[in-house]
Amino acid sequence: MAGQAEAAAAKGKPEAKQSLTFVLVHGAWVDASFWDETAAEMRKMGHTVYTPEYAGHGGDKNTQVTHEQVTKSVADFIKQKDLHEIILLGHSFGGSVIQKTAEQVPDRIKLLVFFDAFVPLDGQSVADQFPAPVQELFGNLLKTSGNNTIMLPFSLFRDVFVNTATLEQAQSLYRKVIPEPAGPAFQKLDLKKFYSLQLPKSYLFLTEDAVLPQGASGWHPGQSSHLGMFRYIEGTGDHMTTVHTDPREIADKIVQASRD
Amino acid sequence: MAGQAEAAAAKGKPEAKQSLTFVLVHGAWVDASFWDETAAEMRKMGHTVYTPEYAGHGGDKNTQVTHEQVTKSVADFIKQKDLHEIILLGHSFGGSVIQKTAEQVPDRIKLLVFFDAFVPLDGQSVADQFPAPVQELFGNLLKTSGNNTIMLPFSLFRDVFVNTATLEQAQSLYRKVIPEPAGPAFQKLDLKKFYSLQLPKSYLFLTEDAVLPQGASGWHPGQSSHLGMFRYIEGTGDHMTTVHTDPREIADKIVQASRD
Amino acid sequence: MAGQAEAAAAKGKPEAKQSLTFVLVHGAWVDASFWDETAAEMRKMGHTVYTPEYAGHGGDKNTQVTHEQVTKSVADFIKQKDLHEIILLGHSFGGSVIQKTAEQVPDRIKLLVFFDAFVPLDGQSVADQFPAPVQELFGNLLKTSGNNTIMLPFSLFRDVFVNTATLEQAQSLYRKVIPEPAGPAFQKLDLKKFYSLQLPKSYLFLTEDAVLPQGASGWHPGQSSHLGMFRYIEGTGDHMTTVHTDPREIADKIVQASRD
Repeated sequence: MAGQAEAAAAKGKPEAKQSLTFVLVHGAWVDASFWDETAAEMRKMGHTVYTPEYAGHGGDKNTQVTHEQVTKSVADFIKQKDLHEIILLGHSFGGSVIQKTAEQVPDRIKLLVFFDAFVPLDGQSVADQFPAPVQELFGNLLKTSGNNTIMLPFSLFRDVFVNTATLEQAQSLYRKVIPEPAGPAFQKLDLKKFYSLQLPKSYLFLTEDAVLPQGASGWHPGQSSHLGMFRYIEGTGDHMTTVHTDPREIADKIVQASRD
Repeated sequence: MAGQAEAAAAKGKPEAKQSLTFVLVHGAWVDASFWDETAAEMRKMGHTVYTPEYAGHGGDKNTQVTHEQVTKSVADFIKQKDLHEIILLGHSFGGSVIQKTAEQVPDRIKLLVFFDAFVPLDGQSVADQFPAPVQELFGNLLKTSGNNTIMLPFSLFRDVFVNTATLEQAQSLYRKVIPEPAGPAFQKLDLKKFYSLQLPKSYLFLTEDAVLPQGASGWHPGQSSHLGMFRYIEGTGDHMTTVHTDPREIADKIVQASRD
Repeated sequence: MAGQAEAAAAKGKPEAKQSLTFVLVHGAWVDASFWDETAAEMRKMGHTVYTPEYAGHGGDKNTQVTHEQVTKSVADFIKQKDLHEIILLGHSFGGSVIQKTAEQVPDRIKLLVFFDAFVPLDGQSVADQFPAPVQELFGNLLKTSGNNTIMLPFSLFRDVFVNTATLEQAQSLYRKVIPEPAGPAFQKLDLKKFYSLQLPKSYLFLTEDAVLPQGASGWHPGQSSHLGMFRYIEGTGDHMTTVHTDPREIADKIVQASRD
């Protein structure tokens, strides 16, 4: 096997296809359809891909949902399907969801992938990761809604979440944005067990993602460094456009972050 | 209209052409010919592009020029042409020029684009944005000149301003470098009105631009973060070569930063 | 000559070929074969390329080697071949080797290129450049070896040194990894003479190199900023894969960092 691989590598032969099992966990303001194009590309590449919906999203209109309920949705999905050796990937807010899910089903997980994702430290909330002006902005949007949700104004969505999109793409994506139940992002999370797990981890960062500022307060190395040792993979794109407009590139990067 | 756009986006049709009006403001050590190749590409794309010259540059040999005179040149140009709904873009030192111009003609501006540009805070000068060793270097060059200008030595220009150029390109570009009147970059600027304006803003950063160091003291997020909320667009290139050698790519990025 | 170059640049003619002389100095855990593919590409481009082996590496099994012995190997090579006007390039740990070599043969050097390389300040060791957790990890690996060497575990090598590789490539490259004599990286280096030399310098950074974290504690601008003024060149790739899998791209970037 080793000799075969070496020969293949030496001759520049294509890599032996490895069929992986993925569970992709979306972030805030979207539902599981966030993954449609990217999951389709990954399936074409021979992988098995699940995109579970979670509490307070998709069909569930409960705006009082908790982080525990969100996590339970994902953990229950994995247990009910009896999945093993999974690559559990979280995007954005989904980073905190895979942290808590990993605490519940560690033996079913082969690798965790954080994709432009929040990685709160033990005792922190997702909102604790925001720069102060963003915390203030979201606090105001929360008060405005009057129903414990936060809706993104189009100008903010267009410039910060889909900065590389055309106007048509931005408008099309904005039509699908749903007011986000605000509770889970502000809950302080007990992550002691997560930080004691020995699971391998990768961080995928798209360099035009401007939801967090670049650098020490940003996705990488700001959030990524919370992981300790991890595999770093870098791509081009922004927070919410590129999964839809360049899904093949995103699928390739996810596989780079996930293969053995 | 919305339905049409959605349909176009869904079918992957090319984006509806939006014809924009640009006013491009160059930086130090160059004149308005800095924009020749890029403006030509933008016009081919259907946009209207103005590249005003300003005091102390081009034909004007006044080395005692002030920041107020520079700004007046640009504001007067906009008023005399009676331009409206403009995208006002500043490169490098030009960032401070569009800040002060925006204070004078805010109603004529649709969007401000800062392109590897300085964004002094209220009460700061452009020179305040330099790292300490650069401040010292420019102070020495200023003394050497004896006439209130700063000339870039070729070695500095070649390694820091046109680092990605071939030697021939670097020499060709250096022949056009003119001693820069030093006053405006060292003036403390009252920017209270600028920071009270509600104009949308974008920041375009070329990752190989080494005039400022990468990171917290750099163009992005160092200077860009002064803007508060802005649209971030990233490209490849350095401070002064790429507008000449890859103008189509720069034009595309400027339009990405500027479209609705 | 200048007129000719200008004409060529104006007409967009290919750059006049400049034949350069390179001495490439590898880093830790590898030997001079690290450069095989890249040196071959550079020779195809018309350059003269030397890849000297140094003490404690290649055929030399001495695990008690010192930084002085390593440097002497490179300086003696340059003197015995009577090389002049060389581009002296160091990768990773090799950065400290070219610093000390430059002190010994400054008149033979045209330019120094640091390629994802350590640049200790005067009085520092290479290990002083590591983040605290990496220092601790290497300290533990050193104790484990019992023979004054540090061997990289495969999981660390795969995720941090060859993060962009396929598994086959990672395994193939790992088979060549040799336990690194630990002494030189922990020696405090007197670099007063190096920091007094007036040699031009370039820094080549591959953005996916994750051996150091991104940003202020990273390769660029962390290590690079120790150089003062330098030419910055950026490419795509990781610490140890890309020289083997994309040698033409690496050769191009090295030449960009090295040409007049």
